[in-house]
Amino acid sequence: MTGSLSIVGLGPGGPAHRTRAAEDAIRDAEVVFGYRGYLATCPDLTGAHQNLVSSEIGAEQQRAEDAVRAAAEGARVALVSSGDAGIYGMASLALTAAAALPPARRPAVRVVPGVTAAIAAGALLGAPLARDFACLTLSDLLAPWEAVETRLRAVAAADLVLALYNPRSRGRAWQLGQARDILAEYRSGDTPVGLVTDAGRAGEQVEITTLAALDPDRAGMHTVVIVGAGGTRRLGDWLVTARSLSESR
Amino acid sequence: MTGSLSIVGLGPGGPAHRTRAAEDAIRDAEVVFGYRGYLATCPDLTGAHQNLVSSEIGAEQQRAEDAVRAAAEGARVALVSSGDAGIYGMASLALTAAAALPPARRPAVRVVPGVTAAIAAGALLGAPLARDFACLTLSDLLAPWEAVETRLRAVAAADLVLALYNPRSRGRAWQLGQARDILAEYRSGDTPVGLVTDAGRAGEQVEITTLAALDPDRAGMHTVVIVGAGGTRRLGDWLVTARSLSESR
Repeated sequence: MTGSLSIVGLGPGGPAHRTRAAEDAIRDAEVVFGYRGYLATCPDLTGAHQNLVSSEIGAEQQRAEDAVRAAAEGARVALVSSGDAGIYGMASLALTAAAALPPARRPAVRVVPGVTAAIAAGALLGAPLARDFACLTLSDLLAPWEAVETRLRAVAAADLVLALYNPRSRGRAWQLGQARDILAEYRSGDTPVGLVTDAGRAGEQVEITTLAALDPDRAGMHTVVIVGAGGTRRLGDWLVTARSLSESR
Repeated sequence: MTGSLSIVGLGPGGPAHRTRAAEDAIRDAEVVFGYRGYLATCPDLTGAHQNLVSSEIGAEQQRAEDAVRAAAEGARVALVSSGDAGIYGMASLALTAAAALPPARRPAVRVVPGVTAAIAAGALLGAPLARDFACLTLSDLLAPWEAVETRLRAVAAADLVLALYNPRSRGRAWQLGQARDILAEYRSGDTPVGLVTDAGRAGEQVEITTLAALDPDRAGMHTVVIVGAGGTRRLGDWLVTARSLSESR
């Protein structure tokens, strides 16, 4: 008798931007797997009747396999990500692990969507994502930098608004500066740029600057950087992209 | 004395994928503006003590101005979008209208994020957005088709996963077939494609096909089409993109 696995996006921070389906999935689980820091954001959803299995950053593959195994063995399992579990989150690893099981051992799996960091950042900045945009990660853990650079150039040339995830981490500081220099080959120095750090959490910071003035030291591990396109304007304290392409020229 | 305006994303369907902040903003409002069809999805959040101002598709500019004016005149106003209000939603228009007021008349404005259609569709399909992706609209109401085509080509060439909004509407049927043919110049015919219609609503439909077999007649006004990239695989009933770029080659 197999159990079930809910792969859950908790949204950007505390309870305000969680969905009801995400809350229900965690409350209903017998076992909850997650990065320690994310489990710490939802103490209101977990209790002594549950088995909480926390692990560290870098242990994603193991965590996904452990969660799938627990579900295959019959438990009602939740596996949590921050933001949306499908976007740079745990869903890809866990679905791949589940699909590798023989059909008779596969648990029922569902993905519960959440508010991803780019959307949370966009809302705090105004409406920078109002028209076509791309999400790219600057992490070089899972890709050679050359591949990241190729994508940056393509998106920059296509005049899409750009949301950069993982612009910087401990021990990885140079990518954001290099990304800025690449983007500056395609976009003017006064292109508006927004930085949002710890959206929805304690210490939330929102900053609007320009591509020319973008200081990589203002970004950290929990920052999303949004780079405007031709239709993006600074309107007072807001960053707003026009919905119409014809308005943007 | 100015009031306040909350620009609220309701998420993809009914209550399951709404955030608490979105629900609170609507419950707390004195006046709620929205497209008739969206107001109909949240009768549990509105009541007889509120003034509900519904309008039709196509009336977005007027609705945004009316909501801003009501807030400027002192009311506590909510303006609703489906999905996320910042992504092809009402936030851009409303913030632009608010910024055009003299500072002394500007109401307090905030954007309450929501689960956008691409994220809801991605969760139902599995994890197609797990690595870099772009959202593009195929609507030609707000852009010349040539501009849409240029963006499609750039994203296709950059091997990004692609979420297509507004693939079709009443009286606008040819764009998705044309987009498919353009994408087929860059990606193989067996590239996995997912179509999700009415995510989270009555009549929800999820379909996985390939780029070569993509039938534009399977898409409607409420469909999101997700086109895989090099790292996207069909795993049983799921569409999954590898998190690592090196896995995808």
